[in-house]
Amino acid sequence: MAAAEEGGGGMAVIRDKGEMRSWSRSRRKAGGGLALVPTMGYLHRGHLSLVEEAKKRAQFAVVSIYVNPGQFAPTEDLDSYPSDLQGTSVGWRRWGSMPSSAPPTFTTMGKAAALEGKLVSCVEDRGGEGAGHETWIRVERLEKGLCGSSRPVFFRGVATVVAKLFNIVEPDVVVFGKKDYQQWRIIRRMVRDLDFAIDVVGLEVVREIDGLAMSSRNVLLSPTERQQALSISESLLKAKVAVENGETSCEGLKASVTWSITQAGGRVDYAEIVDQENLGVVKRIRSPVVFCVAAWFGKVRLIDNVEISL
Amino acid sequence: MAAAEEGGGGMAVIRDKGEMRSWSRSRRKAGGGLALVPTMGYLHRGHLSLVEEAKKRAQFAVVSIYVNPGQFAPTEDLDSYPSDLQGTSVGWRRWGSMPSSAPPTFTTMGKAAALEGKLVSCVEDRGGEGAGHETWIRVERLEKGLCGSSRPVFFRGVATVVAKLFNIVEPDVVVFGKKDYQQWRIIRRMVRDLDFAIDVVGLEVVREIDGLAMSSRNVLLSPTERQQALSISESLLKAKVAVENGETSCEGLKASVTWSITQAGGRVDYAEIVDQENLGVVKRIRSPVVFCVAAWFGKVRLIDNVEISL
Repeated sequence: MAAAEEGGGGMAVIRDKGEMRSWSRSRRKAGGGLALVPTMGYLHRGHLSLVEEAKKRAQFAVVSIYVNPGQFAPTEDLDSYPSDLQGTSVGWRRWGSMPSSAPPTFTTMGKAAALEGKLVSCVEDRGGEGAGHETWIRVERLEKGLCGSSRPVFFRGVATVVAKLFNIVEPDVVVFGKKDYQQWRIIRRMVRDLDFAIDVVGLEVVREIDGLAMSSRNVLLSPTERQQALSISESLLKAKVAVENGETSCEGLKASVTWSITQAGGRVDYAEIVDQENLGVVKRIRSPVVFCVAAWFGKVRLIDNVEISL
Repeated sequence: MAAAEEGGGGMAVIRDKGEMRSWSRSRRKAGGGLALVPTMGYLHRGHLSLVEEAKKRAQFAVVSIYVNPGQFAPTEDLDSYPSDLQGTSVGWRRWGSMPSSAPPTFTTMGKAAALEGKLVSCVEDRGGEGAGHETWIRVERLEKGLCGSSRPVFFRGVATVVAKLFNIVEPDVVVFGKKDYQQWRIIRRMVRDLDFAIDVVGLEVVREIDGLAMSSRNVLLSPTERQQALSISESLLKAKVAVENGETSCEGLKASVTWSITQAGGRVDYAEIVDQENLGVVKRIRSPVVFCVAAWFGKVRLIDNVEISL
């Protein structure tokens, strides 16, 4: 993969754990802060906003690209998850061709490093370096509910792999998107509970022009499903407006969102209003909440949310 | 605690997480390696051997002193566990008065820092900074069996607090005693699985002149119990000799150790022969094993082990 080793805009591609750590340590020793953006590859403009934030917060940015088998259950869509791991620089090139949205800083980005999948594998039955892995991190309350209900091994996989990335990259800052709201809260809690010296930043959901939350899975939607999926963001926005106009009962709000998505042709996995901090289910809105939705369109499961801060 | 802040031999006592991390980072930036010796205080000569090893392996040594509530079940001996947390420097002074065993290097030790208990608490129902803690690390296979059977929350508490210490102290090397054999294996596995950049060193069991494994709990034994407790090390040594003379059947070896301890007045919690690496129970000895024992004498639970490498 000699081509990818070069990348563009001074980017370096690193594929070895020891090399990654040396790279980070030499930068930090020189005094430059270091920010990490963990991704599962297939980079889209939502990721770009994370990288932009990373570059604001630190002198150096590292983007990890890793489709983590540890967070997919055997029945889930690991195999169909869009991946460009075979060419880690594809995502960067894609950005390079988006002059209107890519800031000038992007092409002059000092250094960005991509870790590739197999080196941080922690799924024992796949053999290789991860063989025998048996250490798992659980954030016991926050991992329950929402996506944790329908994806029971998801968050232990996320927390464990993110901790590995922290120990390999040793960043000062890590940037997540709040589209994965529960993930963001879980990582914040893990960092606090385990005393990682890392600032966890969460960025607002980045949306397509019609409101659909950006996701690597969107490319899997048929044109019809793509249109139907707008029911998520549209109904969430309506719910937010309703709360701003005085509605406090969650039951009606949830029924309305579920109805809208179902009417459009989707299948709701959950539509839940929870406390922004502890993700506990809320019945009547009296403090800041987040309205979280997961829904299927065809074979694609999408998630989205809106924060509603009174 | 101004007195403790001074300590002896250039020792510093650090009680704040942020201060600890700054101290470590400034030393590591200057190029000196840093070794951590995690303890639960009440330091004895066994701990001293760990510190000596730490000083061989790194320019700076940090000793943490923390009686971890997270690894004691409600029914266990947290309250009676011998503690000198009220004067963290007591253990060091004790060493200072042991000219025959304390190496000259000890008193000229560059820096040693002690973290104190409450700052790294992770037991939520005690309130304070640890309130709401909900993140736990489990090493799922190794934590089962041996001490994990009779102390079900023990190793998740150990692994979690050790990970916190790693993130606070950021050492290059950590030194454990192999008296806590299962703990040592669990930490090695955790470090490998979570990619901590730390070398985990295990040191041989340090014994009193009559063979009793050194333990902070030994001071809780009555003179009679102290004498009875010798049955552990004596019977383990006999078992080792028997294996060296050709015995391979574990059943007889375990029965013999159990009998000896029971005859002496002890109550065996477990007497188990397991694989040195994965701690799986062995029936016939064909590869390196460790014979592990836990036994009660009065209200005191002691553990010991011998490695038997054919």
